[in-house]
Amino acid sequence: MTYITREALLNMDSRYRAKLINSLSGFKSVNLIGSINDKDQTNLAIFSSVIHLGASPALVAFIMRPSSVERHTLENIQQTGQYTINQVNTDFWQGAHQTSARYERHQSEFEEVALSMQFIDNISAPFVKESQLKYAVALKEILPITLNNTLLVIGEITDIICTEQAIQPDGYIDIESLGAVTVSGLDSYHSTHRLSRLSYAKPDTSLVELNLVGSPHLG
Amino acid sequence: MTYITREALLNMDSRYRAKLINSLSGFKSVNLIGSINDKDQTNLAIFSSVIHLGASPALVAFIMRPSSVERHTLENIQQTGQYTINQVNTDFWQGAHQTSARYERHQSEFEEVALSMQFIDNISAPFVKESQLKYAVALKEILPITLNNTLLVIGEITDIICTEQAIQPDGYIDIESLGAVTVSGLDSYHSTHRLSRLSYAKPDTSLVELNLVGSPHLG
Repeated sequence: MTYITREALLNMDSRYRAKLINSLSGFKSVNLIGSINDKDQTNLAIFSSVIHLGASPALVAFIMRPSSVERHTLENIQQTGQYTINQVNTDFWQGAHQTSARYERHQSEFEEVALSMQFIDNISAPFVKESQLKYAVALKEILPITLNNTLLVIGEITDIICTEQAIQPDGYIDIESLGAVTVSGLDSYHSTHRLSRLSYAKPDTSLVELNLVGSPHLG
Repeated sequence: MTYITREALLNMDSRYRAKLINSLSGFKSVNLIGSINDKDQTNLAIFSSVIHLGASPALVAFIMRPSSVERHTLENIQQTGQYTINQVNTDFWQGAHQTSARYERHQSEFEEVALSMQFIDNISAPFVKESQLKYAVALKEILPITLNNTLLVIGEITDIICTEQAIQPDGYIDIESLGAVTVSGLDSYHSTHRLSRLSYAKPDTSLVELNLVGSPHLG
């Protein structure tokens, strides 16, 4: 085992440190956030910081770096109060990564990376048609994190679109069967292999492995 | 594809909704947070909400639900200003899940789930010996999220301990080679299979797959 001190971290080359520190939190979600501005220009951007915040109310959050290319997303969300979150799967993970390039405002990432827009009633923001699990989100709050000038963008989940067979009888969605991918560090993409679901943990009680039923790619 | 409206979400059985909504954000990190109080009682708790917040300064955050069993962790962190984050791997993922049982304050999860404590100089909080990537964190800020009474606990990474061969020449840590696991929903654990690392995306430039070198389990 190697041991890296705080002093070594502070003296590290900044690009090396960025890759190292980005690896520490573990595997991250991979989502495309779709948005539109008041001139009907659409935007699509990849985020690895989307996190579950709570089920009641149904809240989801992500981290925004204001100085980055992602600002089109932030401006659109502030204008319309609405966005979509689309899980990335093994069919289009490279195109999803390509959305992180610094495209101009008049360029739509949908066209540039060959993904299709999908619209539903009452939601102006575009969904990604190729995504098998996606939802519309209504902006609730933007919380400044002053320590490093990032923003925690919090929204409420309003409309969910999902491949039906992936939804288990207890509500769990088998995202592995949908080919959902995960990312480590800044740029390493991974598919997954289920170890098991586990029962709710109680003191002095052994864990039980839970079986899945009827998921699309698992027979 | 099935379509779930906001009204259907609001009327859903609360346990069903919790499992459904927890599946939406995608794959999550799996970490054990180690802490100690001023009576030298240690605590270890599993979290799926640890996220990367920034590399300079090196900041990591996680979500705390104040009313849950995790409050021992919060109280310890508030007393000592210090904790450890330990990536969970395929060797002890069931024991890690078991730490979510409601143990009493005088019970140490290390003993209950048969994991070993490891200490280093100047850090009072215990590390998990079995983890191959772990770090000490100094508390910087606890940010209340009033929308659902959760807390965003933010800390600075001070000391990193890692299996040396997993660190790539550019700083990326090959956490897959360390057997790091990921979780979907509340209770489904997964190992991973790398699709590829991808080059930094630029407009009008094709992505290149990046090779890894010398990682421990990948030859």
